[in-house]
Amino acid sequence: MSTHRIRWFRRLTAGRNLVSTAMLSGAGLLLAPAALAAQDGAGELGFVLNTYSFLVWGVLVMWMCAGFTMLEAGSVRSKSASMICMKNIGLYAVAGLTYYVIGYNLMYVDVGDLIGTFGFFYGPSADEVALLGGNEGAAAAVTENGYSVMSDWFFQMVFVATTASIVSGALAERVKLWTFFVFVAGLTAVIYPIVGAWTWGGGWLAQMGFTDFAGSTIVHSTGGWAALAGALVVGPRWGKFRKDGSVKLTPPSNIPAVTLGVFILWMGWFGFNGGSELALSGVANAVSMSNILVNTNLAAAAGVITALCLSRSLLGRVDLFATLNGAISGMVAITAGPNITNSLWAILIGAIGSFLCMIGLKVLEVRRIDDVVGAVPAHLFAGVWGTLATCIAAGGDFWVQLTGVAAIGLFAFSTSWILWKVLDRAMGVRVSRSVETIGQDAAELGLDAYPEFVLMVDPDDDNDFRDAD
Amino acid sequence: MSTHRIRWFRRLTAGRNLVSTAMLSGAGLLLAPAALAAQDGAGELGFVLNTYSFLVWGVLVMWMCAGFTMLEAGSVRSKSASMICMKNIGLYAVAGLTYYVIGYNLMYVDVGDLIGTFGFFYGPSADEVALLGGNEGAAAAVTENGYSVMSDWFFQMVFVATTASIVSGALAERVKLWTFFVFVAGLTAVIYPIVGAWTWGGGWLAQMGFTDFAGSTIVHSTGGWAALAGALVVGPRWGKFRKDGSVKLTPPSNIPAVTLGVFILWMGWFGFNGGSELALSGVANAVSMSNILVNTNLAAAAGVITALCLSRSLLGRVDLFATLNGAISGMVAITAGPNITNSLWAILIGAIGSFLCMIGLKVLEVRRIDDVVGAVPAHLFAGVWGTLATCIAAGGDFWVQLTGVAAIGLFAFSTSWILWKVLDRAMGVRVSRSVETIGQDAAELGLDAYPEFVLMVDPDDDNDFRDAD
Amino acid sequence: MSTHRIRWFRRLTAGRNLVSTAMLSGAGLLLAPAALAAQDGAGELGFVLNTYSFLVWGVLVMWMCAGFTMLEAGSVRSKSASMICMKNIGLYAVAGLTYYVIGYNLMYVDVGDLIGTFGFFYGPSADEVALLGGNEGAAAAVTENGYSVMSDWFFQMVFVATTASIVSGALAERVKLWTFFVFVAGLTAVIYPIVGAWTWGGGWLAQMGFTDFAGSTIVHSTGGWAALAGALVVGPRWGKFRKDGSVKLTPPSNIPAVTLGVFILWMGWFGFNGGSELALSGVANAVSMSNILVNTNLAAAAGVITALCLSRSLLGRVDLFATLNGAISGMVAITAGPNITNSLWAILIGAIGSFLCMIGLKVLEVRRIDDVVGAVPAHLFAGVWGTLATCIAAGGDFWVQLTGVAAIGLFAFSTSWILWKVLDRAMGVRVSRSVETIGQDAAELGLDAYPEFVLMVDPDDDNDFRDAD
Repeated sequence: MSTHRIRWFRRLTAGRNLVSTAMLSGAGLLLAPAALAAQDGAGELGFVLNTYSFLVWGVLVMWMCAGFTMLEAGSVRSKSASMICMKNIGLYAVAGLTYYVIGYNLMYVDVGDLIGTFGFFYGPSADEVALLGGNEGAAAAVTENGYSVMSDWFFQMVFVATTASIVSGALAERVKLWTFFVFVAGLTAVIYPIVGAWTWGGGWLAQMGFTDFAGSTIVHSTGGWAALAGALVVGPRWGKFRKDGSVKLTPPSNIPAVTLGVFILWMGWFGFNGGSELALSGVANAVSMSNILVNTNLAAAAGVITALCLSRSLLGRVDLFATLNGAISGMVAITAGPNITNSLWAILIGAIGSFLCMIGLKVLEVRRIDDVVGAVPAHLFAGVWGTLATCIAAGGDFWVQLTGVAAIGLFAFSTSWILWKVLDRAMGVRVSRSVETIGQDAAELGLDAYPEFVLMVDPDDDNDFRDAD
Repeated sequence: MSTHRIRWFRRLTAGRNLVSTAMLSGAGLLLAPAALAAQDGAGELGFVLNTYSFLVWGVLVMWMCAGFTMLEAGSVRSKSASMICMKNIGLYAVAGLTYYVIGYNLMYVDVGDLIGTFGFFYGPSADEVALLGGNEGAAAAVTENGYSVMSDWFFQMVFVATTASIVSGALAERVKLWTFFVFVAGLTAVIYPIVGAWTWGGGWLAQMGFTDFAGSTIVHSTGGWAALAGALVVGPRWGKFRKDGSVKLTPPSNIPAVTLGVFILWMGWFGFNGGSELALSGVANAVSMSNILVNTNLAAAAGVITALCLSRSLLGRVDLFATLNGAISGMVAITAGPNITNSLWAILIGAIGSFLCMIGLKVLEVRRIDDVVGAVPAHLFAGVWGTLATCIAAGGDFWVQLTGVAAIGLFAFSTSWILWKVLDRAMGVRVSRSVETIGQDAAELGLDAYPEFVLMVDPDDDNDFRDAD
Repeated sequence: MSTHRIRWFRRLTAGRNLVSTAMLSGAGLLLAPAALAAQDGAGELGFVLNTYSFLVWGVLVMWMCAGFTMLEAGSVRSKSASMICMKNIGLYAVAGLTYYVIGYNLMYVDVGDLIGTFGFFYGPSADEVALLGGNEGAAAAVTENGYSVMSDWFFQMVFVATTASIVSGALAERVKLWTFFVFVAGLTAVIYPIVGAWTWGGGWLAQMGFTDFAGSTIVHSTGGWAALAGALVVGPRWGKFRKDGSVKLTPPSNIPAVTLGVFILWMGWFGFNGGSELALSGVANAVSMSNILVNTNLAAAAGVITALCLSRSLLGRVDLFATLNGAISGMVAITAGPNITNSLWAILIGAIGSFLCMIGLKVLEVRRIDDVVGAVPAHLFAGVWGTLATCIAAGGDFWVQLTGVAAIGLFAFSTSWILWKVLDRAMGVRVSRSVETIGQDAAELGLDAYPEFVLMVDPDDDNDFRDAD
């Protein structure tokens, strides 16, 4: 049994797939039951299906980065939309390289209690190289791993990119481009992989029995904590919170773009949660994957309806932005256990996730924390709720879940906060007030997002500019 | 043989899959031929492939909702774009919940001649629950069903959402938000499922031999009839049709968004028609699915070229909007039989669908019916044509097809009309004239779609506003 | 062994799949190993998987046309955005029909040294028709082909559409609509298929050992050469290159649309390269497909980072447009060999591709060649580099590669140039100066892209207009 196989099963037994462990080892449930396993070929089929599932669903998760980009580019002022596009295409590239160079090894290879290996790069197994080189004798060893090594890497990499995407939206319009990229490198090379090592990698939280199927906490809350730390260190946009206690309205500049972004995220989430079944080789996997997609959809729908019905009471109007965030927060909440909750619980979990997101939007405003797209309420608050809700809905140890939420929160927030602080000293986290007023697009990129469209002049911005150094 | 299996085969024999029935029952064509069927495991593989096909193609169909959203948000005035986003994200959520609570049972479970079961909720089979709970003995019964229960639910649910999406575009800019959602609930919980029960569910039309592979009539015409009824009850936008007989031009406000929407629909339609093969377990299924994708693409391409070449004669200019609708109407038309028509017929069917759509645009204008996005010509007219064309192209009983088209049209239109009328009494279907003039975005949502962009003032709107109560 | 099977293997042995040939013929690596092959059914499974892989990945490649459309519609002036949408939806339709009527046969059926067959239309094999017609005895012959005939057609067709998409961007804002469509018809019916016949079809370059896995040269450079020829014949936009040697800035009009386009292309490229493995029937195919997706992603990421870091030195600012093109050129470069280069080489190849693209942007500007979206640098320059880099990275005959690059370049450029020249005589390639100044949207389509948005007036355009005939 190769290292990869160990890693895979460790992840499964570590709680990512509470139900599936039994399935995978059960002779009758696999496509390789006893009768066929005696022949060659049956395990090969499972290998192909598992690999193909990683690839197809992984492509959908990659697509979520486009969703975040559209959501954020539509949510910021027009004067900041080019820069948010730059940050998003850049963060996906940074995450893809750091996770290749360091992150994956740290998260998954020979994980002890705390971390994996500080090795550089990751690649196909020696058996796979031999097989592609024409050594047919390597096929058996390759097949035994259960899936192609790099298909798993691909699927894991698009997850870390999701975590980084959460940060860009919250800090939009004022965080420096290069500082942001350095933070993303730290988040994706070290912080997220360590959280992952504790859990999916088989570390101490996994050993305690902590369960988080596709990452309500591991992916979404971690991103949310990093965003919150950043929002605190970077501070709110100039003029967002006024001395008289009032809050400047900053409505999204392009609503159809925001809506498209949410639809992309919704679509991509089927890959995010469905692919996290990690296998397609058995009947039980296929059944579970189906339930996962349905529960994901029901939770999102419930989040939408909840926001539709409650936003007038909570936020003063039927709020499209809250409704769109309702879909996201509903999906964040169900992500911890779409495989083990039943459908009615999925609806309830999604609805409460959306409710908490709306509350969170108010709380952040009262606390004068500026999160441009509501990333913290949608990903952090709903993520915590989802991780706890899983064991309420489907059984599990509440205190273990709470321990995981707290430990990951403490770690992700504190390391992010320290990293932001260090970066502030080293290179500054925030653009100058004049750059912020003019907009990063014109001031830093020299490229307006909509250069031919005549835009409103914001009188407050004029004041900001006159006051600037 | 479980209920689910009966439902499945009934749907197949009910005409959804004229050709495939033979394939599925033919020993040599399945992946589970006699030789392997004697062993466990072969049927398991078919189960996994069928299920995975439902999920992947179903995700593409869900994506069509984003396509409709972009198409509609780009087609309406800028002042109405936020509201159309709200309606589209909301209708997908409403459809997803009503179809879960009522619709699916009514359409597919124990269907007699007219309807299925008025039961609440739908979920995995008892065998599936047992299997996921660790009871490996349930695997055989699960496998026998041929696909995972919820994968089919997911695939059917995204179809009902498509039907609802058709309505939102036609009635844009003037229908009340909550009234629209209540109508969508009625359409997706009752009207569409009853149409579905008559046909794919195995009811009276299926028993007569009516065939509509992926829903030219069942999905698209039903949506078109519901939209037409709504357009008649709600009435045209203020000022659209002037007393002097002239028609106010209301060009799309964002052409790239409309174009993106059509590309999304084109992409999603591969899932819509391809997934409607309902199985991937045999060589014949794979061959048929390939032909389906090719025919879908050829029909759409023919629709585009037809509109390109004829729009100048018919509409007075080389018309991009008609060309984009040409792709849609071409695909609507081929949807009734992409599995049984040959490629040349697919081209012809798509071309004529596009031609009828252009004629329909003119007819609606002459009849002073205001359909903002051309949903009725594209989905209803082309859908009727496609359903009839199938039997012209590939054999079948023309009168049975005509009976189905007429019966479904009569039912869908009359129930929709009654529902719209009842809603008009109960809560009003139409916003006030002043809200319409200001735009639903500002007046009802308090959220302009493009708040920072300076927009043209429409002098006619000013007149409207001065005349308002 | 059927014709189709011969074609398939010829393509594989012709270099498209250097490594995979061994895999496919190796008994132990297929899902149909000796033990199972003796039974019926095993080859059927491979058939289903190969076919399904073509279809799913092919849909992603079709989606790239939407990516090009968004990229181009966002890159042109607002006054030309509707027309570029028209050209893109039209070219996909034209390509889909010409390749069906002529192109595929010319490229793949009974290819000698230079071309295939001048036959009309293409369709399912007789065995497939018989199978779908109920003749179960045809199953064995169908299965022997290895994949469904039309699934391959579909996958090849979306590739030719990609080639045509490259041309539309370069010539935006001044090429005549109908002339462009006629050129696309010639490119997709004849020019591209002949290039394809020489290589993937098994012609003289394939026989020499030329290798280009998914088409750095065959698809991307061919499109780039056609675009370059067009740019030379059509000439630059009025006022782009001034007499004093300065260059008029023409920044993209809608940056979020451009960014969305690049994300769509990135997503679609997983299908472009992954699907070019051409099979999913064996463990080695699954391993190779995984490596392909990872290498594609790494090359794109490296392209992004390279442009981020070097654009200030090379282009005078941190350049978002170059960064987005960095992703594209990185992927173009790796496309020739994502299956045989290792990951570190993939990063290097992508980085250099991006570097060459930036150099190319400067070179074109100096040579006063107007390529609106940078299609020639991204697709032609990076494509040439990638085709040569493959044999540097993974072995192969450099001179054979160079011969292929030169021969295809010479052929594609000269035939395109001649066709453009003939079209110029016959129907004119360029709109009048007044149409160009007003914009093709208003002047030819009568449909502004953003009719309600107030746009800047370009003073230079005013001058153009006054000077116009």
